[in-house]
Amino acid sequence: MREIRDSAELKRMSVRELNALAEEIRAEIIETVSEHGGHLASNLGAVELTLELHYVFDLPEDKLVFDVGHQAYTHKLLTGRLQGFRKLRTREGVSGFPQCVESDCDAFTAGHASTAISAALGMARTRDIMQGNHHVIAVVGDGALTGGMCYEALNDAGQSGTRLIVILNDNAMSISKNVGALSRYLTGLRQSRGYRAFKRGTRNMLERIPVVGLPIFNVIDRVKGSIKALLLDDKFFSALGFEYMGPIDGHNLRHMIRILKRARDYQAPVLLHVVTQKGKGYTPAEDHPDQFHGVVPFFIESGEAKEEPDVQTNGEVACQRITELAETDVRICGITAAMADGTGMELFKQHHPDRFFDVGIAEQHAVEMAAGMAFGGLRPYVAVYSTFLERAYDPILVDICRNSLPVTFLIDRAGLVGRDGDTHQGVFDLSYLSMMPNMIVAAPRDARDLRRMIDLSILVDRPMAIRYPKDGDDLGPGIRSQRPIRVGEWELLLNGTDVMIFAVGRMVQNALQAAVELMGHGVSAGVVDARFIKPMDTDLLLECARKVKLVAFAEENALRGGFGEGASAFLQREHVHNETLFFGVPDFFIRHGSVLEQQRECGLTAPQIASAIEARWKTMAE
Amino acid sequence: MREIRDSAELKRMSVRELNALAEEIRAEIIETVSEHGGHLASNLGAVELTLELHYVFDLPEDKLVFDVGHQAYTHKLLTGRLQGFRKLRTREGVSGFPQCVESDCDAFTAGHASTAISAALGMARTRDIMQGNHHVIAVVGDGALTGGMCYEALNDAGQSGTRLIVILNDNAMSISKNVGALSRYLTGLRQSRGYRAFKRGTRNMLERIPVVGLPIFNVIDRVKGSIKALLLDDKFFSALGFEYMGPIDGHNLRHMIRILKRARDYQAPVLLHVVTQKGKGYTPAEDHPDQFHGVVPFFIESGEAKEEPDVQTNGEVACQRITELAETDVRICGITAAMADGTGMELFKQHHPDRFFDVGIAEQHAVEMAAGMAFGGLRPYVAVYSTFLERAYDPILVDICRNSLPVTFLIDRAGLVGRDGDTHQGVFDLSYLSMMPNMIVAAPRDARDLRRMIDLSILVDRPMAIRYPKDGDDLGPGIRSQRPIRVGEWELLLNGTDVMIFAVGRMVQNALQAAVELMGHGVSAGVVDARFIKPMDTDLLLECARKVKLVAFAEENALRGGFGEGASAFLQREHVHNETLFFGVPDFFIRHGSVLEQQRECGLTAPQIASAIEARWKTMAE
Repeated sequence: MREIRDSAELKRMSVRELNALAEEIRAEIIETVSEHGGHLASNLGAVELTLELHYVFDLPEDKLVFDVGHQAYTHKLLTGRLQGFRKLRTREGVSGFPQCVESDCDAFTAGHASTAISAALGMARTRDIMQGNHHVIAVVGDGALTGGMCYEALNDAGQSGTRLIVILNDNAMSISKNVGALSRYLTGLRQSRGYRAFKRGTRNMLERIPVVGLPIFNVIDRVKGSIKALLLDDKFFSALGFEYMGPIDGHNLRHMIRILKRARDYQAPVLLHVVTQKGKGYTPAEDHPDQFHGVVPFFIESGEAKEEPDVQTNGEVACQRITELAETDVRICGITAAMADGTGMELFKQHHPDRFFDVGIAEQHAVEMAAGMAFGGLRPYVAVYSTFLERAYDPILVDICRNSLPVTFLIDRAGLVGRDGDTHQGVFDLSYLSMMPNMIVAAPRDARDLRRMIDLSILVDRPMAIRYPKDGDDLGPGIRSQRPIRVGEWELLLNGTDVMIFAVGRMVQNALQAAVELMGHGVSAGVVDARFIKPMDTDLLLECARKVKLVAFAEENALRGGFGEGASAFLQREHVHNETLFFGVPDFFIRHGSVLEQQRECGLTAPQIASAIEARWKTMAE
Repeated sequence: MREIRDSAELKRMSVRELNALAEEIRAEIIETVSEHGGHLASNLGAVELTLELHYVFDLPEDKLVFDVGHQAYTHKLLTGRLQGFRKLRTREGVSGFPQCVESDCDAFTAGHASTAISAALGMARTRDIMQGNHHVIAVVGDGALTGGMCYEALNDAGQSGTRLIVILNDNAMSISKNVGALSRYLTGLRQSRGYRAFKRGTRNMLERIPVVGLPIFNVIDRVKGSIKALLLDDKFFSALGFEYMGPIDGHNLRHMIRILKRARDYQAPVLLHVVTQKGKGYTPAEDHPDQFHGVVPFFIESGEAKEEPDVQTNGEVACQRITELAETDVRICGITAAMADGTGMELFKQHHPDRFFDVGIAEQHAVEMAAGMAFGGLRPYVAVYSTFLERAYDPILVDICRNSLPVTFLIDRAGLVGRDGDTHQGVFDLSYLSMMPNMIVAAPRDARDLRRMIDLSILVDRPMAIRYPKDGDDLGPGIRSQRPIRVGEWELLLNGTDVMIFAVGRMVQNALQAAVELMGHGVSAGVVDARFIKPMDTDLLLECARKVKLVAFAEENALRGGFGEGASAFLQREHVHNETLFFGVPDFFIRHGSVLEQQRECGLTAPQIASAIEARWKTMAE
């Protein structure tokens, strides 16, 4: 596509030219995502909407806040980032989400859902305090509307009366198929006679109005009565203090531009209900918008993935096992928060639909409901990505752990997550879960142990968190143990006389490789699989630490509050004073790139671990 | 009042007898709370409602879930806890909140707002899976409805179609005066002609119907048409899939019992909008329900507190200072989440109403909005209790810290909180905030340093958290420093040659006392005020640790992930291997009692610290 530096270029285009540009953008997005992976369907659905917003508003003076940010590719392409976009989500390219460091047109950087209206209200109030005059626009998908923070913000904004434009981008689909009563309600609005009449009738009416030569505002003002009559009278958003406009076909540029201008000139909070089609313009994505939400590189012609994964993901392994266990254990139920596909819960849903609950993007509610279920005697399994589980920190602590309820958390995308980058890193869970009394925190070293960990989870009568990265590995028969896993029991995989490495999850593999490397350099390093971060295997920790001079802790988690600090503090209490090395995620946010690049940034690759240990060992010998 | 063991006694009473019992309960609540403090106005408002629920439903088979739990005193008095209630919130008495360990009629134990509908939905779904037949009732105040989790739960429950009764206990007041568009909407419902007609007309109509001799259900069924016409047609809750009934006068027993039976027999989710008066039956509380929400012991006749506090609370100190600074710095704004009184923000509100924002019980939105404001150039101060800030863990980490925005958190009720007990302990904040990159975490040792810390906060350009307990102390002129506080700089208060105690916040005082005690036993202990948990004063830490054999860390925070672990890990990295003692909150939940009792349970009193250090010192000398 052509390079576009700023929206001044757009503003000179005719609707016909804008439509042509939309097609260029679509081709660019499909091409780039087919090569690098990323969010496809949501971005294809938002092409015209973004063009319309750039056409009507003045960036960066006006503030445009994208919820989640997985629909911002067009926005990036319209703000001088074409070259970076072509290396999307790699270290050299742009992030998959808005980032202030990339452009001053990125008014806010998000990454988690349901945040945009709150942030936009903050900006609108700032404008009012500073007596500015610009516009603030939040773009929110209908899926994100299931998140409670949206509602907290609408409630507050509605009362404030301040100028704020909320665009509800309704594609009847967030990440997977939408859930909840409100979704049904929006469907009702879409299917109403008003919307259908509006699509047909108003377009003609508006198209008859001359655009050039007359101030748009007056024109709009004159047809206001008729438009008003066509727009639905909505009670839900008006109860929250918003002026509701819609539903409107978001792909109709001419039409949307007029309505947007009207919303822009409104002196109170307004919610514009826009209907778009997810995946629009790319048939495979139109047909299967959920499968084309987040994608790996694919062949454009067929829509098929370029590399078929040859192993199950860890999520699939975990959910397959609970699906099996649920055949005979009627207490088992499955819960997810709009992530049935990503977490592997889809399988459980198919086999046990009556015991499966997708609550939408509503992690707090997912966890609190699990508490109610555990009180009632069920055994809920909550499958959520590590970064999104952060939203339920308080109910996990105050309701699940304080009452010591048998809820198991299947924490996917834990550790470094690669291309999704800084908003999605799963590197805090060991810290925030380990501080919670009564919680068992586990991290299996591979898919095989994950399955055994699931078997254990149903036997324990306490809250338990099992965290794992996306890809399932199998460390091979050489280190397979037949002993059943017991709570708080670690496994000595390799004996060493100089150094002991206590490693967590995926780091076990790196520790074993490092140990082999060290052996070649004359350092005898042992490896312990510290599969329970809480409770720790204090006997094995003490025994192993006492027989060496140097201990090392390795984890894909923040160093602060993580496994290493906890284990080291225990040794201090026991008067064991080894030299100590801590391998983990340093105290900064890790941006997008490959997992290997991110591990390298943190000093967590096997060669890095080996050479850091060797260097320390040599210093100690001096 | 008379002792009541279970609700079978109630079910035999006439409405006249129930009304008499309500007065006994009121007198008992006023008497007990005047002696021990506690939640008054909310409990007085819920007396009849609780009687009605116990009359209509069968506990413990039916599950009654109170939101927050600060309205459960009547429930406790109806379930055999009269004696324990008379020692309310002391170590020997019952907790101020529902607790399963106290009674099997406490179906759920909460403590934080907006959780009940989620938990109740979990119980209702459990019942459906297990093919039970009982009822599940959630009682939620209108204030808690501002919390997003309520809405997440309503949205999910509404779609589920499962039998669930939500009682909206609307007293137009949560903790302080209610906010938000929805609150205005509810007011509209209350003031509508329908409700007024219903209060006057229906009562007479219903009272003419003979109760004894006719099955109630049939009677209700016959008048159903008329009642239905009187109940309002609500669009907000029906958009969320609920059958709406109301508004109904909650203090009218005869009337409410009939409506409750109708709600009970409904085969879908139903929301019953009940209007009650907060503080009912005690004039001072009726007149000033916000001042009588949570109270200290008071004189019943006048309503005046028995002990007037002679010092400002820390919250008042902090908010007074930002109020002063805001006179000349227009960027400063104040945000709270339904806690203007408790946090001291009331003062800021009075002086700068245009820059003050109370968002209701909506901590996530409060923090996310602050992010938007900081992006826009303001300097927001978010004043929240430590335990409630937990709800905003994710936006603090992902939006404030990842973007390194200059938002200051004024964290009140940090550390051990005394009588509110296990649901309200502020002992996790140092752990969950210290793991966040870019965050400054500070804990002043007294009110004077708190003021100086506020002065510092406006100069730093990063997220900063300042945590403090409720009561403001002043450690006296002897340890007053004139040096301005700098980020990450600790203060050596007392030199020692044997032991160094690094203490945080209120523990500085205990450490100083312990040092004096140790001196008497021939141990020379120094004390450092470690006022920054992050970043730490690594120079002073190293210097002090190197000159003694034993170091101790003291904090009113969970040991896991807390200050001590972080500081100790730093020393490990620097090859400094002292003997180490960790003083903090152990790995369990601390129940209600006085702060001193709780400190003692954790081994945090000055004598305990002194004797633990002395014991270790003696062992080391051997």
